[in-house]
Amino acid sequence: MNNEIKRELSAIVGERWMLDTPNELHVYSYDATPLYQAMPDAVVMPASVEETAAILKVANRHRIPIVSRGSGTNLCGGTVPTEGGIVLVTNRLNELYEIDQDNLTATFGPGLITAELHTAVEALGLFYPPDPGSMRISTMGGNVAECAGGMRGLKYGVTKDYIMGLQAVLPSGEVLRFGGKNAKDVAGYDITKLLVGSEGTLAVVTEITAKLLPLPKAKQTLVAYYNDLTDAARSVQRVIAEKIIPATMEFLDAETMRVVEAYAGIGLPLDMKAMLLIEQDGTEMQVEQDILRIAEICRREGATEVRTAETPEEGAKLMAARRAALSALARVKPTTILEDATVPRARLAEMVEQVGVIANKYDVQICTFGHAGDGNLHPTCMTDERDKEEIHRVEQAFQEIFHAAIKLGGTITGEHGVGIAKAGYLDLKVGTGGIELMKRIKDAFDPHGIMNPGKMFAKDTRRRVVVNTHECGHKHG
Amino acid sequence: MNNEIKRELSAIVGERWMLDTPNELHVYSYDATPLYQAMPDAVVMPASVEETAAILKVANRHRIPIVSRGSGTNLCGGTVPTEGGIVLVTNRLNELYEIDQDNLTATFGPGLITAELHTAVEALGLFYPPDPGSMRISTMGGNVAECAGGMRGLKYGVTKDYIMGLQAVLPSGEVLRFGGKNAKDVAGYDITKLLVGSEGTLAVVTEITAKLLPLPKAKQTLVAYYNDLTDAARSVQRVIAEKIIPATMEFLDAETMRVVEAYAGIGLPLDMKAMLLIEQDGTEMQVEQDILRIAEICRREGATEVRTAETPEEGAKLMAARRAALSALARVKPTTILEDATVPRARLAEMVEQVGVIANKYDVQICTFGHAGDGNLHPTCMTDERDKEEIHRVEQAFQEIFHAAIKLGGTITGEHGVGIAKAGYLDLKVGTGGIELMKRIKDAFDPHGIMNPGKMFAKDTRRRVVVNTHECGHKHG
Repeated sequence: MNNEIKRELSAIVGERWMLDTPNELHVYSYDATPLYQAMPDAVVMPASVEETAAILKVANRHRIPIVSRGSGTNLCGGTVPTEGGIVLVTNRLNELYEIDQDNLTATFGPGLITAELHTAVEALGLFYPPDPGSMRISTMGGNVAECAGGMRGLKYGVTKDYIMGLQAVLPSGEVLRFGGKNAKDVAGYDITKLLVGSEGTLAVVTEITAKLLPLPKAKQTLVAYYNDLTDAARSVQRVIAEKIIPATMEFLDAETMRVVEAYAGIGLPLDMKAMLLIEQDGTEMQVEQDILRIAEICRREGATEVRTAETPEEGAKLMAARRAALSALARVKPTTILEDATVPRARLAEMVEQVGVIANKYDVQICTFGHAGDGNLHPTCMTDERDKEEIHRVEQAFQEIFHAAIKLGGTITGEHGVGIAKAGYLDLKVGTGGIELMKRIKDAFDPHGIMNPGKMFAKDTRRRVVVNTHECGHKHG
Repeated sequence: MNNEIKRELSAIVGERWMLDTPNELHVYSYDATPLYQAMPDAVVMPASVEETAAILKVANRHRIPIVSRGSGTNLCGGTVPTEGGIVLVTNRLNELYEIDQDNLTATFGPGLITAELHTAVEALGLFYPPDPGSMRISTMGGNVAECAGGMRGLKYGVTKDYIMGLQAVLPSGEVLRFGGKNAKDVAGYDITKLLVGSEGTLAVVTEITAKLLPLPKAKQTLVAYYNDLTDAARSVQRVIAEKIIPATMEFLDAETMRVVEAYAGIGLPLDMKAMLLIEQDGTEMQVEQDILRIAEICRREGATEVRTAETPEEGAKLMAARRAALSALARVKPTTILEDATVPRARLAEMVEQVGVIANKYDVQICTFGHAGDGNLHPTCMTDERDKEEIHRVEQAFQEIFHAAIKLGGTITGEHGVGIAKAGYLDLKVGTGGIELMKRIKDAFDPHGIMNPGKMFAKDTRRRVVVNTHECGHKHG
């Protein structure tokens, strides 16, 4: 990228907010995904929709790739600037404009931290349910881009279910508004929902209006331990078949339990094969009733021990242990690869078993935990990226896991996104016809292909491309 | 359309299912929307996805308009074949393939009647919430095309919130699958949600997978009468601000009450200015508590009478009276025009007042009822299409109503769709930039523009085009 373009960008955001020293660029050369890294040519941090539009116009005119990002907590390499260009950081657009208590909505900039939205609305007795693992640092713009999920997806759905309105900037610099505060709105195609989960490949979101719910009054946590994986999976299925929808049903396999216990020391039994962590919320009475029935079902289906948290603090501690799973696993080996193959919940036991078989076959260490209630598993591999031979086996194992998920009626990604990590597998789920259609839709937004190029749609047929530092950072403009 | 093409169509579906006599064509020249009518050239009724694909290929090759429809209960002229061509009737694709009790999903053809889906799933203790007014005759394919709403939208959302997977045929004849049974799935753009509400302008849906909920165990109905419209609107607002989300909050103004009472004779007081009909569902205990608190709020906010239905039968009777509103109003004058301008719920009182002012200004009779809880009003005009001068005033009044809704942060259509009736107003909500983007998305699906042409996007700037019988039916192919 030549200096003339950098001067144009500086003129828009001010010198302080246009970064281009090697050290600064390095900070934006990676995200939370292991194995992927590439240098951008410049990093810009707009403070307004007008600045965002002006940046996009420059990029569009010079055909420079634009990778928009918040905190970069995604796990699909979605914000690695693999073709160089401009990284557009939305963190300064972090204002919480309004919590509208009459319409039960919140309106804010994409840079707002997810947990800050939680805190602000909960102080008013309101509730924004999506709670991705990264919520303490992830931005709402990132949650929208990836359609973030979380532990409360079973009962409350995912980010898409809460986004009612968006302001977004097209690559042309045109600023458009979609949706709004209306509970019902069928005026034209639903561009709002199309943008949620579009991974920065269509437009840059500059304002978000989300739906809120009343905050549930009570919450209880139950933990069930199993000698047999299948019993745990069947318990999940039976609870739902008996028409109880808990807020959360988390699953941890023996290996994950062991690692979490070593990390958090909360007294998990180490001789068990699996555990379920179940949370129900609602009115006090309803929660009480549901938890009793769930405990009964878990016992009936073979749990060796079922325990209800005595106090909210004990419940919170158990949930924190589950949330710590990724950090705990990350300590085991230098490189942790967390996937999110997802199946219809009735196929959960089969999927967990197959992950075990595949890990053995390729002699790699894979722990499995995740959101059992919605079939969203996180097979997690502890490996070392410096060991090229092992990494190759890891790639083969995950490839087989994705195929297994698809065979069970599942999908290659439940909540992490396609990005670059799974671009080569997208055809497994949507077919080449589906990909062609999606590319035509991308063209409708982004005719010059500047928005997060190389993401979602694979450039070639090689799967799980690993991009090395300094390898990229092409010169543009 | 020449006979050669008709023979091609006959060869696909069989002679019996290709209709082209004037009497047969007349049946498919209109839908539930008053004032719009146009003759198709042929009507075809495929029995499979393969036949549907073959029909689309023929139409695409000869550039013949395709209007897909179920029972035609939409209220936006969405299935009137204004440019002639083929009406593709999906009613034969009406099989209920599966109710999956483990994954809480149902899979069926687009021709399935909405109420039949309700009955089938409720027999298993499950629940498909969307309940559009036309549910006894509407098809699920039509519900998907229009993103149908209904009385339970406040608590349970609309059709879009329940559609998890679709099989659809592109104009090219390509058969694609989107989504599925996974509670979480972010593999690529969400084409499923894009197709819901796309009004037959993108593809023909041939199979639908919908999400189900456990059927609530209990239900109670409350009715509140008001001397003052504003008190009723404020009651709605207060209930929600106090964190109660009822399943249904319906509003009827004085004129609607009078007309419904004359029709149904259920003892509505005729000296009141407004009534609210509120239903809550859930566990028995919760329903009891909520209804008590709602009654208290309504009284506090000025209701002159608040009554809880003593028995489920009484509750059902009250709800049936509300459901009869349209039929009751339709008896008053030869032509009934039902609109669905929608505002954020906090603006409800203002909107109802403005409808009154506008009706007076243009000296037209407009009753207002609708889904108060989600701000989705149905200003309904009783008129006579033979009185051209009055119809002109009606059009002016509705134009002003749409502008008023937009000014209050609302939308031109909450649940009826754009179709042809509101195509001229779409720019009020989404702007010309939004329309241009949507047209480019349409091109991505339908490059030759054969899918329901003239709908959603206005062909010219004249608003509320009235198409007369026999005026259309252009020759194609």
